[in-house]
Amino acid sequence: MAQQDKAQQPIGVFDSGIGGLTVLKALCQALPNENFVYLGDTARLPYGMKSAQTIKKYVEQNAQYLCRQDVKAIVVACNSASSVILGQKQMNSHPLYNVIEPGAQKAAQVSDSKRIGVLATKATASGAAYVRALQELDPEFHITQQAAPLLVPLVEEGWENDPLTNLVVFRYLTPLLETGVDTIIMGCTHYPVLKQALAKATGPHIHLVDSAETIASEVQRDIECERIAANPSSERGWIRILTTDSPPGLKKLAQRILGDHTISSIEHVDLQT
Amino acid sequence: MAQQDKAQQPIGVFDSGIGGLTVLKALCQALPNENFVYLGDTARLPYGMKSAQTIKKYVEQNAQYLCRQDVKAIVVACNSASSVILGQKQMNSHPLYNVIEPGAQKAAQVSDSKRIGVLATKATASGAAYVRALQELDPEFHITQQAAPLLVPLVEEGWENDPLTNLVVFRYLTPLLETGVDTIIMGCTHYPVLKQALAKATGPHIHLVDSAETIASEVQRDIECERIAANPSSERGWIRILTTDSPPGLKKLAQRILGDHTISSIEHVDLQT
Repeated sequence: MAQQDKAQQPIGVFDSGIGGLTVLKALCQALPNENFVYLGDTARLPYGMKSAQTIKKYVEQNAQYLCRQDVKAIVVACNSASSVILGQKQMNSHPLYNVIEPGAQKAAQVSDSKRIGVLATKATASGAAYVRALQELDPEFHITQQAAPLLVPLVEEGWENDPLTNLVVFRYLTPLLETGVDTIIMGCTHYPVLKQALAKATGPHIHLVDSAETIASEVQRDIECERIAANPSSERGWIRILTTDSPPGLKKLAQRILGDHTISSIEHVDLQT
Repeated sequence: MAQQDKAQQPIGVFDSGIGGLTVLKALCQALPNENFVYLGDTARLPYGMKSAQTIKKYVEQNAQYLCRQDVKAIVVACNSASSVILGQKQMNSHPLYNVIEPGAQKAAQVSDSKRIGVLATKATASGAAYVRALQELDPEFHITQQAAPLLVPLVEEGWENDPLTNLVVFRYLTPLLETGVDTIIMGCTHYPVLKQALAKATGPHIHLVDSAETIASEVQRDIECERIAANPSSERGWIRILTTDSPPGLKKLAQRILGDHTISSIEHVDLQT
């Protein structure tokens, strides 16, 4: 394929569902002229409670499907999926990005006390991926993890500004706060939607880290240093969304998350074909 | 296959996960000499938030897999899966049972006011399967549905006796109680675990209907009238559990639900093989 063609290829992004659109939004903001193909594996979501072995199989199938869509790079916009490919920089000879390492780097930058909390799904917490990524940066970090399986359904209920959600958030954050953390990583792409409720429970002196922005900076840097070919177009790129299941309300919710980044098309796909 | 062999074949039961073990337990109690193969599709759970089209595909794959295990009947121990096969009495020439119709029959028996509430997952509620099954029995029933997506994760957190769960249950039940129902169907196999919290919110004068017992009576009746060949053995039957994913703690949780019905084997399977 000629270099020019490669440059115009889209960047592939995948997640277990639509939570990863928060990552896609940050990518669109950082790289407005790039094209994107987003794959949401809504037929098998959530990954957060499944075993590493099963998640690995799903990650491979999703990545292979994106490669068949001629992507030039793959962004794994799902913490549970990222946790099984930690340290891996390539897949099928494409640059590969996970959300864990940028989140860990950001937390390492902002933490003074070196006490960091991680709020995550069961799978991410039990894989301890943030613990490994942080200790790789500095073995002196003291890290406490908290699995928080109710937060995703609370977001999906639309109860983000609700006293009940505040109670659940307070329940999950208490053990973290008791360890004296000054930084908490929001270790699931849904959690930034709950940022206000989280901040209410932590108070103003705790940093809340969102991986979406740091992963976007990382991809941008790799385009600038030509690890990924930049799209020379000066027009706004397109966004193609593929999902393995199409539950009611999907398009509306997806557009709500993406804000003014317009979805070009939304298609139902079968990964086996 | 000789009639004797057929009689010794197991009864197949499937669910999206392990919630359907509450149905298996009721079956074991009613039919202690029968053998059972239980398939939990834990790699793709939950079904409750997926589209009817995707759930139908999963139901067919699960049923075909059970047929390859030489079952003599198929029990769909999952409300979301049952909602897409309503009225269907056979699959691959095997007797087929769903949990919706027995639940509806029980509710119809116990309700005096003819005002019935249904607490269910999003998929079951949006498919309105209980509404169809109840109105088939009596078009004068006044039925109100309530989707309750937080209840399954609350059970899986083990928070069944928790003030927070009482709050969530109260939130979901209030709109049902305001319509004057005298009967509420627990339209998801996980919900009977929350029976105490539900009863606290409804007070003592509302019937809470659990489908597990009524489905077991229906299968027992069909064995008595020889629609299904009875196992002539006088020994206690075996229970073989198959799951498509094996998350940590699965065996312990499964045995806790089944109580004194001992699991003979628990295996990880791939439906595609």
